[in-house]
Amino acid sequence: MKYSPINLKEKLDKFSEHWSPKIIAQMNNYHFKLVKFQGDFVWHSHAGTDEVFIALDGEMSIEFHDGKVALKAGEMFVVPRGVEHKPFAKEECKIMLVEPVGTINTGNAGGELTTEENVWI
Amino acid sequence: MKYSPINLKEKLDKFSEHWSPKIIAQMNNYHFKLVKFQGDFVWHSHAGTDEVFIALDGEMSIEFHDGKVALKAGEMFVVPRGVEHKPFAKEECKIMLVEPVGTINTGNAGGELTTEENVWI
Repeated sequence: MKYSPINLKEKLDKFSEHWSPKIIAQMNNYHFKLVKFQGDFVWHSHAGTDEVFIALDGEMSIEFHDGKVALKAGEMFVVPRGVEHKPFAKEECKIMLVEPVGTINTGNAGGELTTEENVWI
Repeated sequence: MKYSPINLKEKLDKFSEHWSPKIIAQMNNYHFKLVKFQGDFVWHSHAGTDEVFIALDGEMSIEFHDGKVALKAGEMFVVPRGVEHKPFAKEECKIMLVEPVGTINTGNAGGELTTEENVWI
Protein backbone atom coordinates (compact mmCIF):
# COMPACT_ATOMS: atom_id res chain seq x y z
CA MET A 1 0.00 0.00 0.00
CA LYS A 2 1.63 3.19 -1.18
CA TYR A 3 -0.34 5.61 1.00
CA SER A 4 -0.59 4.78 4.70
CA PRO A 5 -2.39 6.65 7.47
CA ILE A 6 -0.45 7.71 10.56
CA ASN A 7 -2.21 6.10 13.53
CA LEU A 8 -1.64 8.17 16.67
CA LYS A 9 -2.30 5.36 19.13
CA GLU A 10 0.05 2.97 17.35
CA LYS A 11 2.76 5.62 17.39
CA LEU A 12 2.18 6.38 21.10
CA ASP A 13 2.60 2.69 21.92
CA LYS A 14 6.13 2.79 20.51
CA PHE A 15 7.71 4.72 23.38
CA SER A 16 7.26 5.23 27.10
CA GLU A 17 9.71 7.91 28.23
CA HIS A 18 8.42 11.30 29.36
CA TRP A 19 9.22 14.76 27.96
CA SER A 20 10.87 13.32 24.86
CA PRO A 21 8.99 14.37 21.70
CA LYS A 22 8.96 11.95 18.74
CA ILE A 23 8.28 13.13 15.20
CA ILE A 24 5.44 11.42 13.34
CA ALA A 25 4.83 13.74 10.38
CA GLN A 26 6.17 16.73 8.50
CA MET A 27 4.10 19.43 6.76
CA ASN A 28 6.26 21.97 4.89
CA ASN A 29 8.81 23.05 7.52
CA TYR A 30 6.71 21.97 10.51
CA HIS A 31 6.85 18.79 12.56
CA PHE A 32 3.99 16.97 14.24
CA LYS A 33 5.35 15.29 17.37
CA LEU A 34 3.97 12.98 20.03
CA VAL A 35 5.10 13.35 23.62
CA LYS A 36 4.13 11.92 27.01
CA PHE A 37 4.09 14.35 29.91
CA GLN A 38 4.25 13.47 33.59
CA GLY A 39 5.21 15.77 36.43
CA ASP A 40 6.79 19.20 36.03
CA PHE A 41 8.62 20.45 32.97
CA VAL A 42 10.89 23.52 33.07
CA TRP A 43 9.92 27.15 32.57
CA HIS A 44 10.92 28.11 29.02
CA SER A 45 9.90 30.06 25.94
CA HIS A 46 10.40 29.85 22.18
CA ALA A 47 11.46 33.25 20.88
CA GLY A 48 10.82 32.51 17.21
CA THR A 49 7.58 30.56 17.12
CA ASP A 50 4.15 29.81 18.49
CA GLU A 51 3.71 26.24 19.76
CA VAL A 52 0.59 24.09 19.52
CA PHE A 53 -0.43 21.57 22.21
CA ILE A 54 -3.21 19.09 21.39
CA ALA A 55 -4.21 16.80 24.29
CA LEU A 56 -4.88 13.25 23.02
CA ASP A 57 -5.29 11.34 26.28
CA GLY A 58 -5.27 12.46 29.92
CA GLU A 59 -5.04 15.93 31.41
CA MET A 60 -2.31 18.54 31.62
CA SER A 61 -1.87 22.20 32.32
CA ILE A 62 0.35 24.97 31.06
CA GLU A 63 1.33 27.55 33.63
CA PHE A 64 2.10 31.15 32.65
CA HIS A 65 3.41 33.93 34.87
CA ASP A 66 -0.03 35.52 34.86
CA GLY A 67 -2.34 32.53 34.60
CA LYS A 68 -2.83 28.93 33.61
CA VAL A 69 -4.67 26.80 31.07
CA ALA A 70 -5.90 23.25 31.72
CA LEU A 71 -6.20 20.85 28.78
CA LYS A 72 -7.93 17.49 28.63
CA ALA A 73 -8.21 15.04 25.71
CA GLY A 74 -9.86 16.76 22.74
CA GLU A 75 -8.63 20.22 23.66
CA MET A 76 -5.80 22.31 22.24
CA PHE A 77 -3.95 25.53 22.96
CA VAL A 78 -1.50 27.76 21.09
CA VAL A 79 1.31 29.16 23.26
CA PRO A 80 2.34 32.47 21.65
CA ARG A 81 5.95 32.98 20.67
CA GLY A 82 8.15 34.40 23.39
CA VAL A 83 5.74 33.65 26.24
CA GLU A 84 7.32 31.80 29.14
CA HIS A 85 5.38 28.69 30.10
CA LYS A 86 5.69 25.53 32.17
CA PRO A 87 3.84 22.34 31.21
CA PHE A 88 2.65 20.06 34.03
CA ALA A 89 0.75 16.78 34.26
CA LYS A 90 -0.21 15.13 37.53
CA GLU A 91 -0.66 11.78 35.79
CA GLU A 92 0.67 10.77 32.39
CA CYS A 93 -0.83 12.80 29.57
CA LYS A 94 -0.37 12.14 25.84
CA ILE A 95 0.07 15.17 23.64
CA MET A 96 0.59 16.11 20.01
CA LEU A 97 2.83 19.14 19.44
CA VAL A 98 3.02 21.15 16.21
CA GLU A 99 6.03 23.40 15.78
CA PRO A 100 8.73 24.31 13.26
CA VAL A 101 11.40 21.78 12.31
CA GLY A 102 14.29 22.14 14.75
CA THR A 103 12.31 23.50 17.69
CA ILE A 104 13.99 22.44 20.94
CA ASN A 105 11.72 21.19 23.71
CA THR A 106 13.21 23.36 26.45
CA GLY A 107 13.40 26.48 24.25
CA ASN A 108 15.63 29.13 25.82
CA ALA A 109 16.05 27.25 29.11
CA GLY A 110 18.27 24.27 28.26
CA GLY A 111 19.03 21.83 31.09
CA GLU A 112 18.88 18.10 31.50
CA LEU A 113 15.40 17.66 30.00
CA THR A 114 16.60 19.02 26.66
CA THR A 115 16.26 16.59 23.76
CA GLU A 116 17.75 18.13 20.66
CA GLU A 117 17.52 15.01 18.56
CA ASN A 118 14.92 14.87 15.83
CA VAL A 119 13.74 11.34 16.41
CA TRP A 120 11.14 9.91 14.05
CA ILE A 121 9.01 6.96 15.12
CA MET B 1 -10.17 33.38 32.64
CA LYS B 2 -7.41 34.77 30.48
CA TYR B 3 -6.20 31.48 29.00
CA SER B 4 -8.87 29.17 27.60
CA PRO B 5 -8.50 25.78 25.95
CA ILE B 6 -9.96 25.23 22.48
CA ASN B 7 -12.39 22.33 22.81
CA LEU B 8 -12.72 20.52 19.48
CA LYS B 9 -16.11 18.97 20.20
CA GLU B 10 -17.61 22.27 21.32
CA LYS B 11 -16.35 23.90 18.15
CA LEU B 12 -17.68 21.07 15.95
CA ASP B 13 -21.13 21.51 17.50
CA LYS B 14 -21.25 25.09 16.21
CA PHE B 15 -21.81 24.24 12.55
CA SER B 16 -23.39 21.55 10.43
CA GLU B 17 -22.62 22.31 6.79
CA HIS B 18 -20.28 20.07 4.82
CA TRP B 19 -17.03 20.98 3.04
CA SER B 20 -16.87 24.39 4.69
CA PRO B 21 -13.74 24.69 6.88
CA LYS B 22 -13.92 26.86 10.02
CA ILE B 23 -10.82 28.29 11.65
CA ILE B 24 -10.30 27.51 15.34
CA ALA B 25 -6.66 28.45 15.93
CA GLN B 26 -3.65 30.14 14.39
CA MET B 27 0.01 29.16 14.88
CA ASN B 28 2.43 31.53 13.15
CA ASN B 29 1.07 31.74 9.58
CA TYR B 30 -0.88 28.48 9.77
CA HIS B 31 -4.54 27.87 10.49
CA PHE B 32 -6.10 24.92 12.30
CA LYS B 33 -9.55 24.34 10.80
CA LEU B 34 -12.45 22.02 11.51
CA VAL B 35 -14.53 20.65 8.64
CA LYS B 36 -17.27 18.08 8.17
CA PHE B 37 -17.02 15.88 5.10
CA GLN B 38 -19.81 13.90 3.51
CA GLY B 39 -19.90 12.54 -0.01
CA ASP B 40 -17.46 13.43 -2.78
CA PHE B 41 -15.26 16.52 -2.87
CA VAL B 42 -13.58 17.71 -6.09
CA TRP B 43 -10.21 16.66 -7.46
CA HIS B 44 -7.73 19.44 -6.66
CA SER B 45 -4.20 20.21 -5.55
CA HIS B 46 -2.38 22.94 -3.59
CA ALA B 47 0.70 23.98 -5.55
CA GLY B 48 2.36 25.84 -2.70
CA THR B 49 1.81 23.72 0.37
CA ASP B 50 1.42 20.34 2.01
CA GLU B 51 -1.95 19.81 3.73
CA VAL B 52 -2.61 17.89 6.95
CA PHE B 53 -5.79 15.88 7.55
CA ILE B 54 -6.49 14.63 11.09
CA ALA B 55 -9.62 12.47 11.44
CA LEU B 56 -11.47 13.29 14.67
CA ASP B 57 -14.68 11.31 14.26
CA GLY B 58 -15.85 8.91 11.55
CA GLU B 59 -14.08 7.61 8.48
CA MET B 60 -12.93 9.18 5.23
CA SER B 61 -10.61 8.49 2.36
CA ILE B 62 -8.38 10.52 0.11
CA GLU B 63 -8.09 9.29 -3.45
CA PHE B 64 -4.96 9.89 -5.53
CA HIS B 65 -4.43 9.10 -9.19
CA ASP B 66 -2.24 6.16 -8.21
CA GLY B 67 -3.75 5.02 -4.93
CA LYS B 68 -5.86 5.86 -1.91
CA VAL B 69 -5.56 6.32 1.83
CA ALA B 70 -8.33 5.55 4.33
CA LEU B 71 -8.46 7.50 7.60
CA LYS B 72 -10.49 6.82 10.71
CA ALA B 73 -10.67 8.77 13.98
CA GLY B 74 -7.19 9.02 15.52
CA GLU B 75 -5.37 8.85 12.20
CA MET B 76 -3.75 11.57 10.12
CA PHE B 77 -2.17 12.04 6.71
CA VAL B 78 -0.07 14.71 5.01
CA VAL B 79 -0.99 15.34 1.37
CA PRO B 80 2.20 16.57 -0.34
CA ARG B 81 2.15 19.88 -2.15
CA GLY B 82 1.10 19.70 -5.77
CA VAL B 83 -0.41 16.22 -5.54
CA GLU B 84 -3.94 15.98 -6.91
CA HIS B 85 -6.36 14.40 -4.47
CA LYS B 86 -10.06 13.90 -3.86
CA PRO B 87 -11.48 13.55 -0.34
CA PHE B 88 -14.50 11.31 0.15
CA ALA B 89 -16.63 10.24 3.10
CA LYS B 90 -19.51 7.77 2.82
CA GLU B 91 -20.99 9.03 6.10
CA GLU B 92 -20.24 12.30 7.85
CA CYS B 93 -16.64 12.52 9.03
CA LYS B 94 -15.19 15.26 11.24
CA ILE B 95 -11.72 16.45 10.36
CA MET B 96 -9.08 18.91 11.52
CA LEU B 97 -7.04 20.50 8.74
CA VAL B 98 -3.70 22.27 9.20
CA GLU B 99 -2.55 24.51 6.35
CA PRO B 100 -1.17 27.98 5.68
CA VAL B 101 -3.35 31.05 6.24
CA GLY B 102 -5.25 31.75 3.03
CA THR B 103 -5.30 28.18 1.68
CA ILE B 104 -8.43 27.69 -0.43
CA ASN B 105 -10.31 24.44 0.07
CA THR B 106 -10.61 23.58 -3.62
CA GLY B 107 -7.01 24.54 -4.40
CA ASN B 108 -6.46 24.88 -8.13
CA ALA B 109 -9.88 23.51 -9.06
CA GLY B 110 -12.33 26.23 -8.04
CA GLY B 111 -16.04 25.51 -8.55
CA GLU B 112 -19.12 25.77 -6.42
CA LEU B 113 -17.65 24.04 -3.36
CA THR B 114 -15.03 26.79 -3.02
CA THR B 115 -15.18 28.68 0.28
CA GLU B 116 -12.64 31.46 0.21
CA GLU B 117 -13.85 33.08 3.41
CA ASN B 118 -11.68 32.77 6.48
CA VAL B 119 -14.43 32.08 8.99
CA TRP B 120 -13.46 31.73 12.65
CA ILE B 121 -15.75 29.92 15.05
